[in-house]
Amino acid sequence: MAENLVHARVEAIRRLTRRKATGPLERAVKKSSADDIAEAITHLTRSETRFLMSRIGDDQAGEVLLTVGEVDFVALIEAAPIDRILAWVAELDPDDEADFIAQLPEELKEKVLAALEPEEREQAEELMAWPEDSAGGIMSPVAFLMQDDTTCRDAILAIQEQGDVEMVFYLYVVNEQGQLVGVTSLRQLLLNSPSTELSEIMTPDVITVLPEEDQEEVARIAGRYDLLAVPVCDDTNHFLGIVTIDDVLDVVREEAAEDLLKMAGVGQEYDPTGASTLRASMQRLGWLVVTLVGGVLLSEVIGGFQKTLQEHVMLAFFVPVIMALGGGVGIQAATITVRNLATGHVAVGAGSVQLIWREARVGILMGVVLGAALSGYGWFRYQETAFALVVGSSILSTVLVAATLGTLIPLLLEKAGADPAVATGPFVTILIDAVAIVLYMTLATLWML
Amino acid sequence: MAENLVHARVEAIRRLTRRKATGPLERAVKKSSADDIAEAITHLTRSETRFLMSRIGDDQAGEVLLTVGEVDFVALIEAAPIDRILAWVAELDPDDEADFIAQLPEELKEKVLAALEPEEREQAEELMAWPEDSAGGIMSPVAFLMQDDTTCRDAILAIQEQGDVEMVFYLYVVNEQGQLVGVTSLRQLLLNSPSTELSEIMTPDVITVLPEEDQEEVARIAGRYDLLAVPVCDDTNHFLGIVTIDDVLDVVREEAAEDLLKMAGVGQEYDPTGASTLRASMQRLGWLVVTLVGGVLLSEVIGGFQKTLQEHVMLAFFVPVIMALGGGVGIQAATITVRNLATGHVAVGAGSVQLIWREARVGILMGVVLGAALSGYGWFRYQETAFALVVGSSILSTVLVAATLGTLIPLLLEKAGADPAVATGPFVTILIDAVAIVLYMTLATLWML
Repeated sequence: MAENLVHARVEAIRRLTRRKATGPLERAVKKSSADDIAEAITHLTRSETRFLMSRIGDDQAGEVLLTVGEVDFVALIEAAPIDRILAWVAELDPDDEADFIAQLPEELKEKVLAALEPEEREQAEELMAWPEDSAGGIMSPVAFLMQDDTTCRDAILAIQEQGDVEMVFYLYVVNEQGQLVGVTSLRQLLLNSPSTELSEIMTPDVITVLPEEDQEEVARIAGRYDLLAVPVCDDTNHFLGIVTIDDVLDVVREEAAEDLLKMAGVGQEYDPTGASTLRASMQRLGWLVVTLVGGVLLSEVIGGFQKTLQEHVMLAFFVPVIMALGGGVGIQAATITVRNLATGHVAVGAGSVQLIWREARVGILMGVVLGAALSGYGWFRYQETAFALVVGSSILSTVLVAATLGTLIPLLLEKAGADPAVATGPFVTILIDAVAIVLYMTLATLWML
Repeated sequence: MAENLVHARVEAIRRLTRRKATGPLERAVKKSSADDIAEAITHLTRSETRFLMSRIGDDQAGEVLLTVGEVDFVALIEAAPIDRILAWVAELDPDDEADFIAQLPEELKEKVLAALEPEEREQAEELMAWPEDSAGGIMSPVAFLMQDDTTCRDAILAIQEQGDVEMVFYLYVVNEQGQLVGVTSLRQLLLNSPSTELSEIMTPDVITVLPEEDQEEVARIAGRYDLLAVPVCDDTNHFLGIVTIDDVLDVVREEAAEDLLKMAGVGQEYDPTGASTLRASMQRLGWLVVTLVGGVLLSEVIGGFQKTLQEHVMLAFFVPVIMALGGGVGIQAATITVRNLATGHVAVGAGSVQLIWREARVGILMGVVLGAALSGYGWFRYQETAFALVVGSSILSTVLVAATLGTLIPLLLEKAGADPAVATGPFVTILIDAVAIVLYMTLATLWML
């Protein structure tokens, strides 16, 4: 039922919007998540989307806007009256509120901030000050905080009195100075006698992160220690907020998508139809220009072997297969390395020599197999021993170099503090192409001229 | 502190194991997660690992074994006495227990199953029957289940009495027939008066999945509706178990890694040093053989243009740059399409014509820019108008075809029920290489001979 459930909800919203069936649409929207509605929007025209937004309650609209792409966000914000925007903002959780305000065009941002209560404004501004992809940037400042001398009875009473707090799983325990000293759970409160103090039942070793910590690292910690929320504390251990598991899940998805797109030499492009053709093209041209320049330089290098090529034109027949194999092996090795760096299976330094050596061995073995196959074919087809030897040894050395460079380059980038994922696609490929062609042509010139 | 925390724990385990410092090692291990210990193991020799395993409590050892790769799992199991294995199994949660037993070599599996209580054995066998990557395969059969006429007071008493249950967030409410009719939370129990029945406070619309549901879809639903656990019910709505958010997080990571590796034409390869060189090579050779065969066929096609090549040898100089640009554009388009299919942004059918048309427009625009640049360079360098025209129009048509095929092929694979990720790397690349070369050579023969 699951796939149908999601699909049916998205479809219903889309259909009812097109038919302008106000009542049924409002009911369908109430049952759906912000993601469902945002997905339906990708299938609607601008005017249909405006109609849909007018039927969404203020409690859902803000979240929907945070889920649609940047292009739709700006368009829908510009079409909305200021008091509706303020109503949307008022319904958001503090962390979402800060994200929402941060995305607004400059003058609207001023207006919205000015309309907030002083305390709320201060909180929003503090949250907006952290980098978008840091623990501070994704944390929620709201959580259950209790003094360590509170009894279980009083803690339960406090929970019963307090309003709605984003996902309650943990109760954080602070000392008199407001420093985080422990953590406990709702369930622990119920399992212990009402007069027990929290300091007696709390777990004292709390794993915390600094607000500057990269969101990817926060996600890794949450996954590794099976935490539903990771507390964020400053360097004097004062509690600032929590990163909840739903945000962690978003981070993991986001970073996986980013890595994938980066490795293919695309910028960030989530929105299939939103970005204009011109903008999408500009984003992708970056690495292609690197490929172009590399390719032009390579054409000059091959030009230097003009004489060899003219005398043995069949050398040109095998250029594509050598390039394709080198590129394929390089991308395999680079992808595995990027993956292992991302999962923490490999760190720069320890183990990396081992890894390169392993990849080199794999390269040699694959190179021997592929080289022998192509060399055999070349000999059989063109009956020339020197040519067969050139092809075979070119494949062997290309595959070996590709496996080694594909491993080494991401490791070097990581060591230099750069993102290893950008190396994989276009950069590694054109580099390996160049090595492959130069090896092939040089061997041919040495052995066949 | 975060990165240092994880790193420090892994390092401590490693160092203390090497020094055989039993006491400190046991204390360090207690504070660490199964992932920490498993990561330390990747840096240890077999005999060091065996020493480490002998210092790990039965409550942690099973989880550690489930976290290390398959190779280490088998090696460590074979070195352990049967009664220790049974002690490990006894400490695992039911879902982990079933996974653990499923991974055992056949005869050990029989022995372990025979040693279990009849009820526990039945549960394990039921869980093992579901496919590994289905909701049934990752669900935990344990959760708080309550009758709908239970009062809040009785529910709280039941929670206080019941032993440790994996992550309690939701209380599932069933009717007399045992069908799932609602869900509520610990917090709701505290907020309502003790005599209220669960049927009055529960949320009746529970999102459930069937046990056959793909784990990726379960993860999507959990993320979309911000659920900490997704209940699994059979087709008569009887409760079978829950998939918890920590398992969802693992699924998201796993599937992202799989997609990445598949797109690079690698099988599954998590373990950087565990798999033997031979096995790693065999895994990767699959797609390379496709590349090889494609490349050989392509060499025959180019061979057909021997005359053209002999008269205009500079045509060969530009083969790499044309192939590299075609390959680059194709991978970009395919990656974006695979991403959009995975996120549900694009479904086969609706929107896919729109998407192909958009990619074609991007292809034309990029093709004009890149074609003009290379054509200009070609003219300037070799002073031959026909050659410049051939290069320019080849690039334009190659980029256009690459953008379109790169989008179309994953969509067709998805429609055919295959995995779109496998298309991207090697298959799309060699296909586009072929189209590029044939276009280039044909245009050259027509215009230059």
